[in-house]
Amino acid sequence: VLCLKVIKCKAKDTFLKVHKYFLFSGDKVIPVFLSQCRECHFCKSPKTNQCVKAWTEVIMDIMCPIDSRFSCKGKKILQFSGLGTFTEYTVVRQINLAKIHPDAPLDKVCLIGCGICTGYGSAVNTAKVEEGSTCAVFGLGAVGLAAVMGCKAAGAKRIIAVDTNPEKFEKAKIFGATDFVNPKDHSKPIHEVLVEMTNGGVDFSLECVGNASVMESALHSTVKAWGVSVIVGYTLVQSFTARPVDLISGRTWKGALFGGFKAKDGVMEMVKRYMEKKLMVDEFITHNMDLCQIMETWFGLVLTVPDWCVMTFQVKQ
Amino acid sequence: VLCLKVIKCKAKDTFLKVHKYFLFSGDKVIPVFLSQCRECHFCKSPKTNQCVKAWTEVIMDIMCPIDSRFSCKGKKILQFSGLGTFTEYTVVRQINLAKIHPDAPLDKVCLIGCGICTGYGSAVNTAKVEEGSTCAVFGLGAVGLAAVMGCKAAGAKRIIAVDTNPEKFEKAKIFGATDFVNPKDHSKPIHEVLVEMTNGGVDFSLECVGNASVMESALHSTVKAWGVSVIVGYTLVQSFTARPVDLISGRTWKGALFGGFKAKDGVMEMVKRYMEKKLMVDEFITHNMDLCQIMETWFGLVLTVPDWCVMTFQVKQ
Repeated sequence: VLCLKVIKCKAKDTFLKVHKYFLFSGDKVIPVFLSQCRECHFCKSPKTNQCVKAWTEVIMDIMCPIDSRFSCKGKKILQFSGLGTFTEYTVVRQINLAKIHPDAPLDKVCLIGCGICTGYGSAVNTAKVEEGSTCAVFGLGAVGLAAVMGCKAAGAKRIIAVDTNPEKFEKAKIFGATDFVNPKDHSKPIHEVLVEMTNGGVDFSLECVGNASVMESALHSTVKAWGVSVIVGYTLVQSFTARPVDLISGRTWKGALFGGFKAKDGVMEMVKRYMEKKLMVDEFITHNMDLCQIMETWFGLVLTVPDWCVMTFQVKQ
Repeated sequence: VLCLKVIKCKAKDTFLKVHKYFLFSGDKVIPVFLSQCRECHFCKSPKTNQCVKAWTEVIMDIMCPIDSRFSCKGKKILQFSGLGTFTEYTVVRQINLAKIHPDAPLDKVCLIGCGICTGYGSAVNTAKVEEGSTCAVFGLGAVGLAAVMGCKAAGAKRIIAVDTNPEKFEKAKIFGATDFVNPKDHSKPIHEVLVEMTNGGVDFSLECVGNASVMESALHSTVKAWGVSVIVGYTLVQSFTARPVDLISGRTWKGALFGGFKAKDGVMEMVKRYMEKKLMVDEFITHNMDLCQIMETWFGLVLTVPDWCVMTFQVKQ
C-alpha cells in the first residue's frame, strides 16, 4: 500500500494525452491501479468495485502486468500496478484513468488516487460504519488516517487509533480519533485491551497495516454479536487464522480493494468532496520532493522516516 | 450440531409448567439453547440474536452450565446447552422457552428448535441470499437441507448441494437443490470444481458440516468481488486459515448461531410458517423412536446410520 501511495502521489502532475473514449488531450486525470471498464459484469454490479479487466492482469505476484510497454537498454521495464507512474510520461489504459475537475490542484488530489480512497472507503463503503458506533483503526499510515476520517464522516462516536508509534497520535486526532492506544504500553494482547476499554469490543475495526497477526487482533477486538472487521492492509506472504466460533458468535470478516470505490467514479466523487471542502487532503502532506530525489525518498520511506511520508514530485514539463 | 438437533427433537412432547413471566401451565413450548431475555443490549438490538444471559453461560468447552439443577445418586448431571431435554421433566429458564401455537404438532415442530432454524436462517438472515443468485450448501444433514430450503425461499436460481454421500442428493432435491456435487467424484479441490461450474464462483456458500477445511473450501467457492460465505457448522477443535487477499478481493466471511433468529421470536415465526404450509418440516423426518431407545439411537446416529436421523421420542405422560 505504501508503494501504491507513493506512485499515485508521483502521478499528480501527469497530463495524459488520450484521444479515445471519454478523455481528451489536456484533461486532468488520476491514474488508479484498479480499472473500471463499465462493461464487465463486475462493473455493471453495484455490489463491487472489481473490474474483470483489471483483476486478471494486475494482481499477480509481481504486481505488474507482464506485457509492459516499456524497455530501457534492451531490458523490459515492468509497470507497477499497470501504471508505472515514476516517469514523466507513461502509457496507461483509459479504464485506469479517472478524469477530474479541471481546477483540482494536482499536487494535492493525487493522494486521492490510492491511500485516501482506500482508507476512507473501507470505513464508509466496506465496513459501513454506523452513526454513534465505536471503531478501532489499526495502523496510522496514510491509509489508517483516511480510515479514521471515514469513521468520523460516517458518524462514529468513538474512534480508537492503534499504533506502536505514539508520534502518530497527534495527526490521528486531526482526522477524528478520540482514543489512542499503543500496544507497547500493554502487557496483554491488544484486542483484550480494546475489549476492556469498550465493555465487550468495538462495533467496527479496520486493519490498515498489512500484517496477518494484526488482522487477527482486529477481528478479536470487535464485539461478538455484530462486530465487523475489515482487512485493508495488503500482504501476499502471510495467512490469517481464527476459530470458527469467532465468526459463529456473530462477527463478520471482510475486505475490499480501494475502499470499495469504483475506480473512476470514486476518485471523481472524492475529488469533488475535496473541492467542496468536505474532505481533508492537505493535512496528509508532510513533504514535497522532486522526482530526482526518488531514490533517497524511497529508501527513506522504507527504512527510516518515522512519520507520514506523503510526497509530491515536481516533474519538469 | 448433531447433538443439539437430537436433543431438540427429543423435547417435542414437553409440556413445561412455568408460572412466571409469559408462560402458563399447559402452554406448548420449544426449548432453545439460545436465550432471549428481551432486556439485554443484545436482545434490544435488531442486529443480533445473541443474548447476554445465554452467551456467558452456555458456550463453554463442556457445552453445559456448571450450575446444573440435577443430580443422580450423588453425582451432578449437567444439562446440555442449559436444557438437558433427554428427560421426561426438566427445569429450564423461561428465557430459553419459545411459546408456540397450541395446535402445533409437537412431534413435528420440535425440529424447528434447532436444525431447521439454524440452516434456514443462515441462508435467509445471515447470508441474506438474494433472488436469482447461485448458492452452494456444503453438507446435507438436517441443517444443510434446511439451508437448501432457505436458499430456495430467498429466491436462489441455482442451489448446488455438496456431500460425499450421494444418497443424500435425492432428499436435497425435495428441498430445492438444483445441482449435486460429490467431492469424491473429482480429483481437484472441490472449490475449483464449483468455480468452474459457475464461471467464477457462487454468490453465497453455506458450510453445514463443522469442519475447518470445508469452511475454507466454502469460502474459496464464492466469487471474488461479492461472495459471501457463512460458517454454520460448529467445531471447537479446529481453526480455519485463509490469505488476506481472499477477503480483500471482495469476499465476506461470517457466521451466526441459530441462523441469526432471535430464539423465541424466530421459533414462533417459523412454527407459524409451518402451520401456514409455507415451511417444510415433515419431510425431514425419517424415524420415530422412543426415549427408551436412546442409546441405540445415539450410537446409530454417530457411527452407522447413513441418512437423515431426525427422530422423535414418545415420552410417557
